[in-house]
Amino acid sequence: MDDIVAAARRLRGHAVRTPLLASPDLDEVAGRRVMVKAEPLQRTGSFKFRGAWAALGLLSPAERSRGVIAFSSGNHAQGIALAARDHGAPAVIVMPADAPRLKIDNTRALGAEVVLYDRAGGEDRDAIGEKLAEARGLTLIRPFDDPRVIAGQGSVGLEIAEDLGPAAQGDVLVCCGGGGLAAGVALALEARAPGLRVRPVEPAGFDDMTRSLAAGTRLRNAPGAASICDAIVTDSPGALTFPILHRLCGPGIVVTDAEALRAMALAFLRLKLVLEPGGAVALAAALFHPDAIAGDMVTVVATGGNVDPATFADALRRIDA
Amino acid sequence: MDDIVAAARRLRGHAVRTPLLASPDLDEVAGRRVMVKAEPLQRTGSFKFRGAWAALGLLSPAERSRGVIAFSSGNHAQGIALAARDHGAPAVIVMPADAPRLKIDNTRALGAEVVLYDRAGGEDRDAIGEKLAEARGLTLIRPFDDPRVIAGQGSVGLEIAEDLGPAAQGDVLVCCGGGGLAAGVALALEARAPGLRVRPVEPAGFDDMTRSLAAGTRLRNAPGAASICDAIVTDSPGALTFPILHRLCGPGIVVTDAEALRAMALAFLRLKLVLEPGGAVALAAALFHPDAIAGDMVTVVATGGNVDPATFADALRRIDA
Repeated sequence: MDDIVAAARRLRGHAVRTPLLASPDLDEVAGRRVMVKAEPLQRTGSFKFRGAWAALGLLSPAERSRGVIAFSSGNHAQGIALAARDHGAPAVIVMPADAPRLKIDNTRALGAEVVLYDRAGGEDRDAIGEKLAEARGLTLIRPFDDPRVIAGQGSVGLEIAEDLGPAAQGDVLVCCGGGGLAAGVALALEARAPGLRVRPVEPAGFDDMTRSLAAGTRLRNAPGAASICDAIVTDSPGALTFPILHRLCGPGIVVTDAEALRAMALAFLRLKLVLEPGGAVALAAALFHPDAIAGDMVTVVATGGNVDPATFADALRRIDA
Repeated sequence: MDDIVAAARRLRGHAVRTPLLASPDLDEVAGRRVMVKAEPLQRTGSFKFRGAWAALGLLSPAERSRGVIAFSSGNHAQGIALAARDHGAPAVIVMPADAPRLKIDNTRALGAEVVLYDRAGGEDRDAIGEKLAEARGLTLIRPFDDPRVIAGQGSVGLEIAEDLGPAAQGDVLVCCGGGGLAAGVALALEARAPGLRVRPVEPAGFDDMTRSLAAGTRLRNAPGAASICDAIVTDSPGALTFPILHRLCGPGIVVTDAEALRAMALAFLRLKLVLEPGGAVALAAALFHPDAIAGDMVTVVATGGNVDPATFADALRRIDA
């Protein structure tokens, strides 16, 4: 908790203090009050900037001048690229060649060196990264299994507790890949608003966290699944994040890609907020899985909005004209 | 100024405290730092909720129980409808039959009685409204030429001054129809951040405020013009708003519909914010008319996001794939 508070202090004036949004129409669809933490408005378009900034701030001057390296399909990449630039550190990002074009372009535009690898062809991402890191003395910043990063993401939980008050009750639905955000938020809420309970939300085919929480042990996803929720198609819970979530979270919730697209359409119509598919799964759970949730009020962390125009147009077509 | 401060106090906890957003990419396009006040995130999707709420809060219990009436093509309608519902007041909204479908539907969904009139066919809106108001004892709340409404919109200026500090310098671009928001913001900034100067921004063909400021007297638009910026296609400056703007504002700026659509596309890509055409003209001025602006930093008030999916899809097609 001390690390989360310290990270939040470092973020002040550098990260956007994102609002909690609401709409009577969404309340009606969900059958309860829905509050949406709008992290697409965060710098680089996702919450990932928080953890990246928090981690960069803890490097020594020597580490900073050598630079950092990250593996990411996109949002962590952009967060690291901007945080590194603002800290005067070189950044190398290892990205899959099939990551959304917008995320690759944005990462390059932020001044990072992007190294692409062939995810489908079985190139070994870790080997590529380790070779680069060793040769140039780069510090690796992992997307979720890093205490500095988890502390930064926890600032989202501090803000929710501040806005809703220490006596707030209910579920807090968090879009979940490796679990860094969910873990940080859960730790912050445990201390500041213990009546709020984190519920991880995942896309179908990538429900490793949901199944792992039910089994009490870390499980992997079956190979071969596909989802448009590119931001959160991780293979298994993190070694650091899973024990935190197992202790503090309620059961996971699984939604379909079609539900994520409908949630994107409703966020456009009712909140004027751009969500990417992986950033919309928590809202989709609130709207379309009401029976999985308890209480009169549900909080949703909408995590990111870095979506290609074509995918967004697909979501818009799901609005009844 | 006392009225603005009182309105802001009444709005606390009821209106969204909208953030100022920024993006390195927008800064690069504009050639200076761009800060965007994100009023599409306001309740009902535009700043109009502020003025509506401020006005409703000043009615006597008897006036409230008889109800209110408003004329509006959309955003004022939705603001009044929700503010009236929350104050337990009936609301009648007189809307043109050719207003965007989304705005008509949203106004009805908020519980207001919608009376449509034929704008092109020359039906007399004021006559329809006066008859209704007299028959049922309704209180008229005008969209901009009403001191209670101007005071509510001024809360936007208080928040900008609070976020940027009393010593901030530069232009504040405000999307401008009748001038209620621009007047409220100008009055708030005069008191709290006098180095910030309001600049009204209008769509081509509806540049009545720009020409009126230059002439020093209220001028009307030539008939027959058309614009997709439906929220701000008013005929002439308000009788109350014009003297305020004439005293406090810099020259107006005029942008094209095509520039508004390109600004919408960039707000989607870089801010993850949904803008409607009339809510995007100030951002369009910042991005595409840099020579009309002074200083290292420009503030933009993005006023609303109530746009039909088809129009938004048109904006998205302007992004280079």
